[in-house]
Amino acid sequence: MEKTCTVMLPLTMNSSEKRENVCIFGTGDFGRSLGLKMLQCGYSVVFGSRNPRTSRLLPNGAEVLSYSEAAQKSDIILIAIHREHYEFLTDLIEVLKGKILVDVSNNLKINQYPESNAEYLAQLVPGAHVVKAFNTISAWALQSGALDASRQVFVCGNDSKAKQRVVDIVRTLGLTPLDQGSLSAATEIENYPLQLFPMWRFPFYLSAALCLFFFIYCVIREVIYPYVQEKEDSTFRMAISIPNRVFPITALTLLALVYLPGVIAAILQLYRGTKYQRFPDWLDHWMLCRKQLGLVALGFAFLHAIYTLVIPIRYYVRWRIRNTTITQVITKKDNPFITSMAWLSDSYVSLGILGFFLFVLLGITSLPSVSNMMNWREFRFVQSKLGYLTLILCTAHTLVYGGRRFLSPSILRWYLPSAYVLALIIPCTVLVIKFILIMPCINKTLMRIRQGWERNSKYS
Amino acid sequence: MEKTCTVMLPLTMNSSEKRENVCIFGTGDFGRSLGLKMLQCGYSVVFGSRNPRTSRLLPNGAEVLSYSEAAQKSDIILIAIHREHYEFLTDLIEVLKGKILVDVSNNLKINQYPESNAEYLAQLVPGAHVVKAFNTISAWALQSGALDASRQVFVCGNDSKAKQRVVDIVRTLGLTPLDQGSLSAATEIENYPLQLFPMWRFPFYLSAALCLFFFIYCVIREVIYPYVQEKEDSTFRMAISIPNRVFPITALTLLALVYLPGVIAAILQLYRGTKYQRFPDWLDHWMLCRKQLGLVALGFAFLHAIYTLVIPIRYYVRWRIRNTTITQVITKKDNPFITSMAWLSDSYVSLGILGFFLFVLLGITSLPSVSNMMNWREFRFVQSKLGYLTLILCTAHTLVYGGRRFLSPSILRWYLPSAYVLALIIPCTVLVIKFILIMPCINKTLMRIRQGWERNSKYS
Amino acid sequence: MEKTCTVMLPLTMNSSEKRENVCIFGTGDFGRSLGLKMLQCGYSVVFGSRNPRTSRLLPNGAEVLSYSEAAQKSDIILIAIHREHYEFLTDLIEVLKGKILVDVSNNLKINQYPESNAEYLAQLVPGAHVVKAFNTISAWALQSGALDASRQVFVCGNDSKAKQRVVDIVRTLGLTPLDQGSLSAATEIENYPLQLFPMWRFPFYLSAALCLFFFIYCVIREVIYPYVQEKEDSTFRMAISIPNRVFPITALTLLALVYLPGVIAAILQLYRGTKYQRFPDWLDHWMLCRKQLGLVALGFAFLHAIYTLVIPIRYYVRWRIRNTTITQVITKKDNPFITSMAWLSDSYVSLGILGFFLFVLLGITSLPSVSNMMNWREFRFVQSKLGYLTLILCTAHTLVYGGRRFLSPSILRWYLPSAYVLALIIPCTVLVIKFILIMPCINKTLMRIRQGWERNSKYS
Repeated sequence: MEKTCTVMLPLTMNSSEKRENVCIFGTGDFGRSLGLKMLQCGYSVVFGSRNPRTSRLLPNGAEVLSYSEAAQKSDIILIAIHREHYEFLTDLIEVLKGKILVDVSNNLKINQYPESNAEYLAQLVPGAHVVKAFNTISAWALQSGALDASRQVFVCGNDSKAKQRVVDIVRTLGLTPLDQGSLSAATEIENYPLQLFPMWRFPFYLSAALCLFFFIYCVIREVIYPYVQEKEDSTFRMAISIPNRVFPITALTLLALVYLPGVIAAILQLYRGTKYQRFPDWLDHWMLCRKQLGLVALGFAFLHAIYTLVIPIRYYVRWRIRNTTITQVITKKDNPFITSMAWLSDSYVSLGILGFFLFVLLGITSLPSVSNMMNWREFRFVQSKLGYLTLILCTAHTLVYGGRRFLSPSILRWYLPSAYVLALIIPCTVLVIKFILIMPCINKTLMRIRQGWERNSKYS
Repeated sequence: MEKTCTVMLPLTMNSSEKRENVCIFGTGDFGRSLGLKMLQCGYSVVFGSRNPRTSRLLPNGAEVLSYSEAAQKSDIILIAIHREHYEFLTDLIEVLKGKILVDVSNNLKINQYPESNAEYLAQLVPGAHVVKAFNTISAWALQSGALDASRQVFVCGNDSKAKQRVVDIVRTLGLTPLDQGSLSAATEIENYPLQLFPMWRFPFYLSAALCLFFFIYCVIREVIYPYVQEKEDSTFRMAISIPNRVFPITALTLLALVYLPGVIAAILQLYRGTKYQRFPDWLDHWMLCRKQLGLVALGFAFLHAIYTLVIPIRYYVRWRIRNTTITQVITKKDNPFITSMAWLSDSYVSLGILGFFLFVLLGITSLPSVSNMMNWREFRFVQSKLGYLTLILCTAHTLVYGGRRFLSPSILRWYLPSAYVLALIIPCTVLVIKFILIMPCINKTLMRIRQGWERNSKYS
Repeated sequence: MEKTCTVMLPLTMNSSEKRENVCIFGTGDFGRSLGLKMLQCGYSVVFGSRNPRTSRLLPNGAEVLSYSEAAQKSDIILIAIHREHYEFLTDLIEVLKGKILVDVSNNLKINQYPESNAEYLAQLVPGAHVVKAFNTISAWALQSGALDASRQVFVCGNDSKAKQRVVDIVRTLGLTPLDQGSLSAATEIENYPLQLFPMWRFPFYLSAALCLFFFIYCVIREVIYPYVQEKEDSTFRMAISIPNRVFPITALTLLALVYLPGVIAAILQLYRGTKYQRFPDWLDHWMLCRKQLGLVALGFAFLHAIYTLVIPIRYYVRWRIRNTTITQVITKKDNPFITSMAWLSDSYVSLGILGFFLFVLLGITSLPSVSNMMNWREFRFVQSKLGYLTLILCTAHTLVYGGRRFLSPSILRWYLPSAYVLALIIPCTVLVIKFILIMPCINKTLMRIRQGWERNSKYS
């Protein structure tokens, strides 16, 4: 795309047709990129600048004039200037009367000023129609054909006609305008680009906490305990062995937590006998970030997979295997092949692989462009049916891994069971409850409730 | 996105501008979500409801009135009600005369009713202009900023002006309207969201069949045969060893089947001497689901990769390796290093990895958002050139794997060759034919035909 | 989608509404697909054809007439014919006067003709308004719901009204029109679909060169050297061992080269004391293809990961391990477990895995549909913060791998250090410079410059 745009520029210049005029105040990066893009899309652009010497950097084909001259050239003016320098506009009030001023500015931190930049601008220049737009688009995104970052442009303003004009421009530039209503929405629009993954915060902190807890738990069981008992130094386990316990546990727990809220919601609805009661906020928010929870879980599953696959190339493992072989040779005791062992180890690995495979599949379908192509039924099928299958496989994987160890007494160290036992608690609970919920009798009531039926209501 | 929307709501409310009125009948999940979204995008919304007590769940800023009152407030009315309850609209025929009724309803199964809900609505309320829309959008998608599921909104209706009004609304909500023509298209539009991966069905069943066949085939050769011959229990092979034969075979076969139809089509065109003859339907449909076939193949290749990488951590493998070492020590026979063996094993692994890598690359480029950024030539290059390279590498991988085994007599058990031999049939055929087709002489004719030349036609 | 469209067709036919007429000249693949799509989207289509017998292939619902008859039916005519056959249009000049002619044609190679097809058409039919459009869309993309390849349609033309008409059609077909200005832009628009990954060329050749160099380098050290010294044949190393050195080195170098331009730019800006001076072209171009560089690097990292994981299933490795064990048994010397070794090997592997994980994460976020959902701040955070973390982890991975080897004299063969030492040069340089740049004192100046401050300027 870049190529097309830049090279196409000179050609579009010598255009024979009458083209719409747009004026841009400010010749900073954003102003210039916006101007360049507009020239490419068939507008004729006039820059208003305080600083002629920078003009050599401007896209050729654009005019550069003083602010007041530039303003007269067009009835739509984009203010690509930092809020701190807005004052000078007060001198131009006369020229700007009745014109459309587009505020494209952003702040450095959320709610930096009492009122939004757009509203501040509207106060400074009462006569003009102020519209907020383009602040979510970056100079870079404009240059690189607006394909590398978000194409959504939130637009708001009090004058519908002015807003419509801007919306048309946005669309002509190949971006997606989203009308957000009146200028009072500007505050939100200006805060949006300052957010840093708001939906990911909860999953991130949760998983961090889980990791930390299980890491310490495992260190106690596998590093401190052996050291205290038989003065054995196994600190090196902290590099791979222990992470490779912590990651799968976190992954499985998070995956279960993706499906727990759905189960809780179902119970709530059954208990209340209606769906027309809002869920508690914590549950609502939990449900909204299920996707993020699931993807974080996938990340840990991925790490678990690789950490497992590198086992045989680890120095420690190779040393251990060599040792067992040697001791066997020396002690001359033969090692019979136990089929049950083979079954156990193979099926446990196999379950893990299949679970991981489905998990990856879920992850891929959660890519925006993929889920965009699915209709609602397909989306539901993948996220719930396949999702539960994944949960079942991964839980089974852990159960079989436990195998007969569950029974062995050696499992307890200082009364602490090995970590994977804790990992099984939530998944098993979720699966059991889900299993109860899908029993015909209960499921029927639930379905009726979800179709709007209410237990104690005069309408049903 | 969620954050923005919900928080932005209160702000947009105290809007000073004159906003368009929209009326929504029904206060179910979908009605409410649609109302919320519309409020956010600057419409003023009036709900028509049969059930006032649910109104506390409605987005604040929206009015709730009786159906007839609400209907008078706006000339565009969205009917967010189940088809079963449409009857009551007959009482409102007077009020609804000349208004635009938007049918957003869906059914529970394909072709549930003789006529589409929209047409049924049109019959009930003759005076109104019925438009079908929004049925592909889910309440959830609307709430979560329409980013999590499809943004496409199919619109159809007999009155162009009414349809245009709806199309504008769709666009304002940030969705993608697709005009599907007259109201008679409603049946299709209502069936669309009920489909479950129609394009994936054939690839899915085909691969399932292949898997089953090869699984049984391998079980016979590697489990039943040894048991019958020397009473050896190798059932445990069914967990990993055999799947790890079945998956690569299925993957390779499917990959070959992706390129077979293209080859057949070429032969057909050469034989007919024209491209202006429709292909048999089975070929058309086959060609349409090549992408899906390829992706399923990739899935199996992925499984094969992991199943191969876990080999060394399997109990059985470790036991075998240990045994060979021990016996060697005991029998004192040394094991010389055979370079040719090293070459064979390494190059076979290397080919597999490269093939898999290209295969993954193909998969990534088939992601909608990625292929959207490629122009047609790039898309062709990736899908055909890279695709064939992948096929060649994977076939070579299998051939080298076979190595000298091909010749050894031990390969036959009950006259059954080992499975990978069968796996090679289709890929090799495809590659050979393709090789013949790209020979200058033949290729030239083919190109001319594809550019519209016809062998026996008065125009050429 | 395919299903929907094709099946929907018959229904849309018996439409009761008055629909807009569109005429298509030429009944080739593209003409037919375009016609089909337009019928589906509610237009009534008339084909102008030289060749009645092909008409049976046309979408049913469409009329087929002679060119001149068809032209009279509509005031907008799509010319879906190869440029070579444009001449016949000169006979129709009368009929075509004042009509909108849409040139959809493409050429076979870039700049094939002196002037663009659209401009040539405009010369042939002076009376008509020529608009260039649809050439970036493929017949296949149209049939498969325009989801499989780019949806962008570049539109240019000298008559604004004519252009607007076409833009509306493009939008109705569910495609994204991009106004490129006057007809003189047609040349560029016609060249666009003929480009083959222009942005990828530099990264591709660069990595190819790096691979080749390091491959030869390693061959000299690990194949030729041992052969010359002790006549040992280790050619088989060229299959896996050496690639598994070359790939990680290339990956690390490329990753470093992604961040080098940014560092250079910063130094330049500090040196010049202003950001209002254009960077040298090579730097600009380098910065534009950073994303591609990074993705190529990820590819090599991926290969490195797999090549490493297959190590234990290689014949050579198994043979070596078995040998060491046996010799140990025979020589009876025991092998003590060295914790420091375990630490070294484990932490080196661990660092690699984490680095690779972050790298994959970066790759995923660079998918268009994913980066579309991030705001600018999130995008920056991922690409710079996470990016540098990845670089640090990968460099550390290599450093620890080097471990104490650095000191050992045996490392030099013919005065050549082992390859990974070379691999470390660029990454370390980048990291060191970056570390200096983020030191408060320097960073402050840089920030001020980037906010537009200039060292020697009358305005600051």
